[in-house]
Amino acid sequence: MTLTNQRWVLRHRPHGEIKPGDLEFVSEPVRDLAEGEILIRNVYLSLDPTNRIWMSDQDQYMPPVEVGAAMRGGTVGVVEASRSARFQRGDIANPGLGAWETYTIAHEAMAQKIQPPPGLPLTATMSVLGMTGLTAYFGMMDIGKPKPGETVVVSAAAGAVGSVAGQIAKLQGARVIGIAGGARKCAWLTEELGFDGAIDYKNEDVGAALDRLCPNGIDVDFENVGGEIMEQVYSRMNTFGRMALCGMISGYNIDAPPPGPKDFGRILMRRLLIKGFIIIDYFPRAAEGFTDLGQWVGAGKIKWKDNVVDGLENAVDALGRLFTGDHDGKLLVRVSPEP
Amino acid sequence: MTLTNQRWVLRHRPHGEIKPGDLEFVSEPVRDLAEGEILIRNVYLSLDPTNRIWMSDQDQYMPPVEVGAAMRGGTVGVVEASRSARFQRGDIANPGLGAWETYTIAHEAMAQKIQPPPGLPLTATMSVLGMTGLTAYFGMMDIGKPKPGETVVVSAAAGAVGSVAGQIAKLQGARVIGIAGGARKCAWLTEELGFDGAIDYKNEDVGAALDRLCPNGIDVDFENVGGEIMEQVYSRMNTFGRMALCGMISGYNIDAPPPGPKDFGRILMRRLLIKGFIIIDYFPRAAEGFTDLGQWVGAGKIKWKDNVVDGLENAVDALGRLFTGDHDGKLLVRVSPEP
Repeated sequence: MTLTNQRWVLRHRPHGEIKPGDLEFVSEPVRDLAEGEILIRNVYLSLDPTNRIWMSDQDQYMPPVEVGAAMRGGTVGVVEASRSARFQRGDIANPGLGAWETYTIAHEAMAQKIQPPPGLPLTATMSVLGMTGLTAYFGMMDIGKPKPGETVVVSAAAGAVGSVAGQIAKLQGARVIGIAGGARKCAWLTEELGFDGAIDYKNEDVGAALDRLCPNGIDVDFENVGGEIMEQVYSRMNTFGRMALCGMISGYNIDAPPPGPKDFGRILMRRLLIKGFIIIDYFPRAAEGFTDLGQWVGAGKIKWKDNVVDGLENAVDALGRLFTGDHDGKLLVRVSPEP
Repeated sequence: MTLTNQRWVLRHRPHGEIKPGDLEFVSEPVRDLAEGEILIRNVYLSLDPTNRIWMSDQDQYMPPVEVGAAMRGGTVGVVEASRSARFQRGDIANPGLGAWETYTIAHEAMAQKIQPPPGLPLTATMSVLGMTGLTAYFGMMDIGKPKPGETVVVSAAAGAVGSVAGQIAKLQGARVIGIAGGARKCAWLTEELGFDGAIDYKNEDVGAALDRLCPNGIDVDFENVGGEIMEQVYSRMNTFGRMALCGMISGYNIDAPPPGPKDFGRILMRRLLIKGFIIIDYFPRAAEGFTDLGQWVGAGKIKWKDNVVDGLENAVDALGRLFTGDHDGKLLVRVSPEP
């Protein structure tokens, strides 16, 4: 029986917001496996702000998705067929670099078995114990390095990365202020995740709120947003402050380069450190991050939220929610049922 | 006999270039020493770009010089009188924080004895084995961290800091390109200091020259200039590049904040590290720097140039040469004869 693969193919590089027709939902037969390959039925697809970067041809950290190719994305699924001695039918695995499709053929050299930790849902391996958790971990621990009593600000704080980054800073003894959109998200940060304060950028003057909540200035900025929100944080950074530049989502739907801070000289006068990073840089140290995250999650010290949208056909619409902020926690698409 | 102290007093904070009357050259009697104080006859005064920052009231890393106070500066001189058991007449010393004046009274708790290394002139303690050498050392070794074969660019490369920074990078095995103003300075860099290339920003298109001299991009930027020259270097920085932000002299005579790079997102995409620093941050580690610098200078592996202007009355005019580039090496004022 020939299986049918459904996939999202990039047809045009979007300018600004993604428009209908920029990606096309197509069906095609699944080809036979070659020696050493496995067939994965995808269960979850990760939606991430960086997907929007890959659709563009701006200067970026990996080659952009080629026009005419399936959209790239993080996935996890079930092995349905195997011509590899390393994988068996029924194994949970990811293909290495995945795609927005229902079936992925992966070579055994690239695929990885995934072992969901006991008592945790499979989705956790796509969020707090996956790439977004690891991103939060290394950005905060390797660049932000908050010390007890320091003030840490996290933007997009109710997102998959920000919410974990803030909790990690709390575990280091810092005061943590989150910036998020809407009263509900802000309440989640302060009432459930233990943030010391939250700023609703959609309904508050961010600068005034930072002045109120960070009376001693800001020592660490975990930056996910860029633009005007970053400017408000940057202009309040203390001497020897650190900025972990994780993302600049405010600029991803804009063709122009994202603006930097107005007073670049502050980096010199305040001896700031600014470091951009991408999680793949830290893959060689992944075990270190997973070990700490696993212990914290196991001990109930880090909470997280997975936000699952059903149906691969809804992936493009769902991606838009990352840019409007109409989601919280980790945004995933359920491509097919869990085994 | 009452001694007369001549000093430059800040009368108005300059806007743009320093104008006549912004500083006034005054004479006043030297007061008597209190217990624990010493009287230093200043021999050399260091002129540094940061002097211009101290004259302004922009956000900065130390309090600005107060209007009505003597201009602040680095000095070295001879102890002429002492009411401290730690200092004797004839000792070479600096007062800690010095001033643009012929005599400085310093407390023994702040003053430091200076021991010129055997065979080296006293001026070396104000340049390659003084603050500017130390600045070059820590900016390059602690932030730039060039690896063998990497490409390093140094702006203001014929200056006191840049010329040493470039030679340190060469000693680490890097390819080093200097940016300086004028053919004579460029020839000094390549023919005497061993730079692999030099760009005359006054007569060349810096971007085109960087493309030619750095075909594999730039791994380390030792940044002294800021503005358009920094933009040309920044926009060619490689993945995992480091920018040691030491100064932004192109902006010091401008009231507006110095512009940052046009594409701030490059920090993220290329995972750049940008770190501002001021040499006082590294005072606790000064011995480490002086040890290495002393060995390199002693072995003839680092060359330097001191550029001495006679007469404290010429200090303000001479300072202007830092901004026009009409000097090379370390700019000093000889306030009085060496002992």
